[in-house]
Amino acid sequence: MGKYSLVTGCFAGALGLAVVLGLVFAFATTPWRNGRNVDEEELLALEDFEDYLMRQVDPQSIRQFLRSLTHLPHLGGTVEEHRMSALISDTWHQQGMDEVHMVPYEVLLSYPSKEVPNLVRLVDQDGAATWVSAAKQKPLYSPEEAIPDVPFTFNGYAAPGNVTGDVVYVNYGRAQDFEKLSEEGIDLEGKIVLARYGKIFRANIAQTAEDLGAVGLVLFSDPSDYAPEGPEFVYPHSYFLPPSAAPFGTVKLVDGDPLTPFYPATQSAFHIPMAEAPIPTIPVQPISYEDAWQILSRLGGAPAPEEWQGGLNITYHLGPGFSQPGWKLNLDVNNNNTHTTTYNVIGVIKGSVEPDRYVLLGNHIDAWIFGGLDPNSGTAAMLELSRVFTKLVKEKGWRPRRSLVFCAWGAEEYGLVGSLEWTEQFGKQLADRAVAYLNVDMAIEGNYTLRTKSAPLLYQVIYESAKKIPNPDPEETKAGRLTVYDTWALRKPDPVESNTPLMQFIGSGSDYKGFQHNLGIPCMDTRYTYSNRTLGEPQYHTLYETFALVDEIYDRGFHFHKAVTDLWGFVALRLSEPEILPFSLGAYATFISRASANILEKYGDLIASQNITMDYFTAAVQKFNLSTIDFKKSIEKLDLKNPLAVRRVNDQLMMVERAFIDTRGLPGRPDYNHIVTAPSKNDAYSGTAFAGLSDTLFALQETPDDLRPDLWVTFSRHLAAVTHALETASKVLTDDLW
Amino acid sequence: MGKYSLVTGCFAGALGLAVVLGLVFAFATTPWRNGRNVDEEELLALEDFEDYLMRQVDPQSIRQFLRSLTHLPHLGGTVEEHRMSALISDTWHQQGMDEVHMVPYEVLLSYPSKEVPNLVRLVDQDGAATWVSAAKQKPLYSPEEAIPDVPFTFNGYAAPGNVTGDVVYVNYGRAQDFEKLSEEGIDLEGKIVLARYGKIFRANIAQTAEDLGAVGLVLFSDPSDYAPEGPEFVYPHSYFLPPSAAPFGTVKLVDGDPLTPFYPATQSAFHIPMAEAPIPTIPVQPISYEDAWQILSRLGGAPAPEEWQGGLNITYHLGPGFSQPGWKLNLDVNNNNTHTTTYNVIGVIKGSVEPDRYVLLGNHIDAWIFGGLDPNSGTAAMLELSRVFTKLVKEKGWRPRRSLVFCAWGAEEYGLVGSLEWTEQFGKQLADRAVAYLNVDMAIEGNYTLRTKSAPLLYQVIYESAKKIPNPDPEETKAGRLTVYDTWALRKPDPVESNTPLMQFIGSGSDYKGFQHNLGIPCMDTRYTYSNRTLGEPQYHTLYETFALVDEIYDRGFHFHKAVTDLWGFVALRLSEPEILPFSLGAYATFISRASANILEKYGDLIASQNITMDYFTAAVQKFNLSTIDFKKSIEKLDLKNPLAVRRVNDQLMMVERAFIDTRGLPGRPDYNHIVTAPSKNDAYSGTAFAGLSDTLFALQETPDDLRPDLWVTFSRHLAAVTHALETASKVLTDDLW
Repeated sequence: MGKYSLVTGCFAGALGLAVVLGLVFAFATTPWRNGRNVDEEELLALEDFEDYLMRQVDPQSIRQFLRSLTHLPHLGGTVEEHRMSALISDTWHQQGMDEVHMVPYEVLLSYPSKEVPNLVRLVDQDGAATWVSAAKQKPLYSPEEAIPDVPFTFNGYAAPGNVTGDVVYVNYGRAQDFEKLSEEGIDLEGKIVLARYGKIFRANIAQTAEDLGAVGLVLFSDPSDYAPEGPEFVYPHSYFLPPSAAPFGTVKLVDGDPLTPFYPATQSAFHIPMAEAPIPTIPVQPISYEDAWQILSRLGGAPAPEEWQGGLNITYHLGPGFSQPGWKLNLDVNNNNTHTTTYNVIGVIKGSVEPDRYVLLGNHIDAWIFGGLDPNSGTAAMLELSRVFTKLVKEKGWRPRRSLVFCAWGAEEYGLVGSLEWTEQFGKQLADRAVAYLNVDMAIEGNYTLRTKSAPLLYQVIYESAKKIPNPDPEETKAGRLTVYDTWALRKPDPVESNTPLMQFIGSGSDYKGFQHNLGIPCMDTRYTYSNRTLGEPQYHTLYETFALVDEIYDRGFHFHKAVTDLWGFVALRLSEPEILPFSLGAYATFISRASANILEKYGDLIASQNITMDYFTAAVQKFNLSTIDFKKSIEKLDLKNPLAVRRVNDQLMMVERAFIDTRGLPGRPDYNHIVTAPSKNDAYSGTAFAGLSDTLFALQETPDDLRPDLWVTFSRHLAAVTHALETASKVLTDDLW
Repeated sequence: MGKYSLVTGCFAGALGLAVVLGLVFAFATTPWRNGRNVDEEELLALEDFEDYLMRQVDPQSIRQFLRSLTHLPHLGGTVEEHRMSALISDTWHQQGMDEVHMVPYEVLLSYPSKEVPNLVRLVDQDGAATWVSAAKQKPLYSPEEAIPDVPFTFNGYAAPGNVTGDVVYVNYGRAQDFEKLSEEGIDLEGKIVLARYGKIFRANIAQTAEDLGAVGLVLFSDPSDYAPEGPEFVYPHSYFLPPSAAPFGTVKLVDGDPLTPFYPATQSAFHIPMAEAPIPTIPVQPISYEDAWQILSRLGGAPAPEEWQGGLNITYHLGPGFSQPGWKLNLDVNNNNTHTTTYNVIGVIKGSVEPDRYVLLGNHIDAWIFGGLDPNSGTAAMLELSRVFTKLVKEKGWRPRRSLVFCAWGAEEYGLVGSLEWTEQFGKQLADRAVAYLNVDMAIEGNYTLRTKSAPLLYQVIYESAKKIPNPDPEETKAGRLTVYDTWALRKPDPVESNTPLMQFIGSGSDYKGFQHNLGIPCMDTRYTYSNRTLGEPQYHTLYETFALVDEIYDRGFHFHKAVTDLWGFVALRLSEPEILPFSLGAYATFISRASANILEKYGDLIASQNITMDYFTAAVQKFNLSTIDFKKSIEKLDLKNPLAVRRVNDQLMMVERAFIDTRGLPGRPDYNHIVTAPSKNDAYSGTAFAGLSDTLFALQETPDDLRPDLWVTFSRHLAAVTHALETASKVLTDDLW
């Protein structure tokens, strides 16, 4: 390692980069810095920490971590996940964390039978099986793909059951797809539904299929969506999806342990009866696209619409039923819902000045199979980052101003189980003390560009950090785009602000959910991602998410991993070190103003037709805007030498995101509390600002006249709650109490 | 005024009195004390502030305030209440508060007609009225009793209506009273119910009567309960209830504005339809006991049981109906439910060191008529206390360490409307910043002894303060009981700890409800009270609660007022000044241990019969106990010179009460969130620890077998929530995060 320099009088420099939307990063020293009276000469500036981090984060070390994490399948709640938790705990102990905790939860998870595979069968008119789907995905390249530990193919929480029926092809299983079928006069009652993955969360497809009376659901990934270069140019020759891949995934809609809603799954928890658990009652099963061909190529009924056609070399038909008279599909699912224990591992580097303020970093432990990308590219990054931070503590006597809390979550793949139970258990403390939660579910799922979901409060910290991270892509560097930020701005630009990278809504789909949407703690989720040639990272949740996929295809040399690790560390430093929290109030105000303008533009006439005034809402939006400007002015006069004055201002900043939490939940969605950033109801992956308003307005358009009055009441009621939250957000930024 | 002394090196003395259940009051100075670097010599100790207060609080000044507050009736939401709010606001401005805010709410209140009185009539077999009740209470003594501004007698939120029917006498209208009638075969369907005030909240009587099919309710105060010395020895000759008194009061069960549940009644609020408002659908009317005699003396049916007999010189019968054939009672109520505005007035003395930590003091503005005791004895005390504190600021340059926030609430008599809407509007800020809320609804309602309801966390501060307040009762002083504490300990002793005054549960019934039971901010409610010769202060809510009642009967010289004012100020100082919050963790642990033991003793066998384990619950109780001991040890090592370390510990202390808040509410009671201190369901005035558990267990005993399983589920579910809250309360007291 290079020597790092002790810097005197560096604060002006630090201040230069620290102007964040008008908020000043305050590095001026006080007698309390680092918890002891020190001379200014001894202090390091943020830039020195960043330099240290950049020098120390080692691609080869990340590679080693990833190798050690991906030998065996490690589903949530299994012995293998527990071994992985212990490995992480041991690593953190050895690295020298101040505290390491293993936090257990007794939860309901779901597994395929170890003896009897889940199968899909074509059955002829005599009831004889003429074709059977693959029990497991075919080993193609890495030796571990062939080990017996690989589980039978399944979807988490799919109900066990053996059903036989006619098949209907439902495209992506979206609301509009089911509507189309209804228009065609195709009834799903008693049918088995065949849907392709990729546009919406699979649990939504299962829910709709069940609601429409279907008796089973079969899912596959279409080659047009995941293997656009044809069947030859797939894993292990490229990162595209091979014909034998059948992606796993949960089909439970509600997050956390399904038996302990709203409360932690501790020993003393109350469990709702299994019959009330929010999990499907119908069997659901993923199959490969070579197996889907067996079904689709025999399907009867009318040809599917042009846009429903996929990449298999046949004309897709809608069904119901097969062209061969009397043939049926048999779906045989042998999953078990099992009470088991999953562990979170929590490692803490205590803050020197404000140990009771937490900057949290998290990633999950469990994988559907080997987890080469999801989640262990992120786990490897986290272990490397903790290695470097603890080294800084040990070797340099450094401590962050605020505590850094590293979180390895159990059973994320089952619907954020470990993290959600934890935010339920420690929600009061976290709402009081947490500054931000920084999630890296996967460090990479491609090498095309950074993609970041974030609460607006963290925008500027992330942008400024990304501007300092060298571009890991040599082609891009050659083209003059020297930083992660540059490629991001080019390949994922903001549609409104040109030359600025797109910040995506912090919707749902990973462990930040409890933090952002239940507790109001600003969250980030970042990774390197794939290009838009596919609907998702092709090997996602398949057998082929191996170490080799990462090491030989996506990230030779692990430079993309390093870039994400560096970025994660920079963001953590910029939240843990400055005296004044560098929250982007202006970005939040802009975000909210745009979202409110969108709603008025899209639905203003509809709302006006009901004589419902939006005036209070728009006034509250403007007031929030003004309050952020006033706040900026007020802290210019702040005495940074007064630690309690600094704390007061930081507490006000922390309260902004909390102000948007409505403990009573969104309309019909008691498990979502954030009135601004909650994801839209119809697709748990995407995010729409003011989802409670926009979802209700969307639903109103689709609702028959006689049912509308109730929905308008829902809208008006929620509009008042949203307005109240906006007013609170303005008020918490002032010293005036009320 | 006497000169107060500047004290050097007084901290050892202050520490002597500051040991609070093992928690150290920390008066050691730091450079941050009073927000500026000062020399220790300049500082005053707590005792000096107390001396100043004691010298400055002036009985004659309190008397003048009370006189100015009690000239006119000032019902919530009226012009007269608004004038009173303006008077308080002006006074605080003149006194020199840092901030004074008028905070309006648009709410639904209830008034009698100005033209048509509410009347109860005896109607003979031909439908002719043979007797009519008094429209107003009779003027007896003070000139203002005769002014036309006095409203017609009514109960707040009683439904308008004109009903005629047979009367049934229901004693105090408790559950057991209605059961007794049911056993006697008396059906209430279509009947008018006659109940006496005094044992339970009147709104509970109305609710039960309505539920049982009664068409109206008439309420009176029985002379055996409020005039035990006979009809001659009553107001204005004594403080006992005169025959013409008809106490007002709300019959709405749910607190706050009935049309905006859970959200503040601001301009942008959503209003539920009037039909869904939680107010009675039957007419309810209070009458005097001379009018009640007219009904009771004519009642037919069987004689009422011995314990149901009252102080009128007749045998009370049950009814239904009158002894005269064909006679009926006619109840004619002409109230209006009215949308109107009520104002809170908030005055702030900003803290020097921690302006964002609030010690709140409150009392309400509105009175049913003149409010001589309720609330203006408290208002007069509050205005005197604010006068003295602001004088200290102006004359001595003193500021409290934490902000003192004075709150004058609107429309309390209508069910805590102003304070509840305010805690709904500013709940996030208050939960984050409020140290305690100190309520004095009335300074006096008698001169017998202090009576205090309190959260356990405030016990020791109150005890220690009461020990320093000279006894205002010369008789008691002569008997050697020199302090308020001494008489309190004698006349209201704790049944378990002899020689210690009783601390009553902080149930409900005044403006602390939102603070204690929704937000988890520890509350006190204190006053001088009456002896146990009556069921309540006799003139409570009647015309005769005049200035004269206070000035000539209860508190000649206003020494009892001064004692309560001093106590209030002392408690406020002891919460605003010390570096470490002097919260009685040990008292809370004891309180909880006793309550859990009570439940196990009373219901242990019943619970065990269901194979429900109480082990986790009792373990959590013990853990909380231990955590308070560990906490005590840990703060002994605290560096009091480190302001952020002090703040961290105080934040942990503040979190204890918050830990007991369950945002999901108690079983069937979404408007009560505190799992320990919520009042029992059947009587909103009393308090039972763990009411969610004990109410459910009580109900189980009364429930038929087939309905029990659901209640056991309710019990188990809530038991888990309670256990989780207890575990959280232990955890918030540690530096260990989880």
